[in-house]
Amino acid sequence: MSDLATFLTAALEVADATDGVIRTHVASGFSSRHKADRSFVTDVDLAVEQHVRDEIGRRFPEHGILGEELEDTTSRGDYTWVVDPVDGTMSLTHGIPLYGTLIALLDRGEPVVGVISLPGISARAWAARGAGAWVDGERITLRSVDDDEAIMDEVIAVGERRQFVAVGLEEPFDRLMRSHPGVRVYCDCFGHLLAIRGAAGAMVDYGLRIWDWAPSRVIVEEAGGVFEIVGEREIDGEKRYDVLLGKPPVVEWVKRAMLAEP
Amino acid sequence: MSDLATFLTAALEVADATDGVIRTHVASGFSSRHKADRSFVTDVDLAVEQHVRDEIGRRFPEHGILGEELEDTTSRGDYTWVVDPVDGTMSLTHGIPLYGTLIALLDRGEPVVGVISLPGISARAWAARGAGAWVDGERITLRSVDDDEAIMDEVIAVGERRQFVAVGLEEPFDRLMRSHPGVRVYCDCFGHLLAIRGAAGAMVDYGLRIWDWAPSRVIVEEAGGVFEIVGEREIDGEKRYDVLLGKPPVVEWVKRAMLAEP
Repeated sequence: MSDLATFLTAALEVADATDGVIRTHVASGFSSRHKADRSFVTDVDLAVEQHVRDEIGRRFPEHGILGEELEDTTSRGDYTWVVDPVDGTMSLTHGIPLYGTLIALLDRGEPVVGVISLPGISARAWAARGAGAWVDGERITLRSVDDDEAIMDEVIAVGERRQFVAVGLEEPFDRLMRSHPGVRVYCDCFGHLLAIRGAAGAMVDYGLRIWDWAPSRVIVEEAGGVFEIVGEREIDGEKRYDVLLGKPPVVEWVKRAMLAEP
Repeated sequence: MSDLATFLTAALEVADATDGVIRTHVASGFSSRHKADRSFVTDVDLAVEQHVRDEIGRRFPEHGILGEELEDTTSRGDYTWVVDPVDGTMSLTHGIPLYGTLIALLDRGEPVVGVISLPGISARAWAARGAGAWVDGERITLRSVDDDEAIMDEVIAVGERRQFVAVGLEEPFDRLMRSHPGVRVYCDCFGHLLAIRGAAGAMVDYGLRIWDWAPSRVIVEEAGGVFEIVGEREIDGEKRYDVLLGKPPVVEWVKRAMLAEP
């Protein structure tokens, strides 16, 4: 196997295990608390991230690991894994099954392997650079969209308005909401999955950390779609990104609609 | 068995069958087209509604049946079934698995049995008046919410903005979107299911026909929640309803936020 195939296989095996960790916690109950930024963290986040770190560290001790909840492991080479153990913690704590685990491998900063696994609805997408994109075992390719009328029939997935407010960009959010009839808030990895599968024409997600978008980048590009970073800034010493992904003409349309002068 | 228990059992058996009809169509592919009002109708809608009509008509020939797609059957008594074969047709046609079949029985206009079945995510809620509410085989009761701070941590599910635009009420939609950080567009029966399960504190859904809300009414009330019709009008000779459902204090909060003067 090529290195990338080995890394993808490892990532999928780790995701099988983390799906199990999440399902066990959901079945038995778990505790959650607010972090300083008023976001939630749960026992599940911590257990899943520890599990990923143990498994990746055991298999690839020279690789770095960045995760949402625990201490960074520095890379002794080109490869760094980025992990969001539970993307959509608010969904998890509320009993909305649209949360997931995100695992990506960066090669000198560029995502080359990505896995998005949603155990609550038994859905998974993955890709390795140059090897295509897969959803639930089937290779996927995004259909194109012909014209503006067809774009109006698409669903546009967006993150929650509070994410846009947090970066001072609620105006573009509201403008998009007003300008397209099919805008729906499908936050976190579920929105990304919809865009990767072409169920949504695009996903618009602002204020992300790198582990929130790294898997989507390689998966949507391997599916024939586009991924664009349309904004970057530092908040509390941490880099945040505004991203669009999906079918090329829809992403273009959304960008124009959001950036248009009011 | 009491009459209501008989009717509920029948509705659940019919839903088992319609889940199968939908899954078969999704697996094999189906065609869809725009209706005059630009909404979608598919072969799946028609096949499911015909199936429900055949099964209900065979079991209860004296009952009436109203459905979204086919000719009404008049009741020769107190009971009328209302059916939305595919609630969330746009989700179905786009490959978003959050659509479902809605079946309710009205006794002189009042919902007394309700079933909401989402075969795409294998989820189901049901109730019969006086017999409690059930989700996926477990009896459910809505937790209450203590204070305004806790209300801010709830998820508020809303229908798509276009539904509010269609009835000229986009201002209350936009006001709610701005006033609560956890507003998410979870359209159709998935939003209703979230409110019934308490995953969302409330569901806000405007411009509905009776089959869109009849099952939710009996299910959420049997779960200890509230259901309110906050607006009614006729559009093209058809009655449309604006509804709120969920945990009593959250529904109250949402009503105040939407109706507040700007």
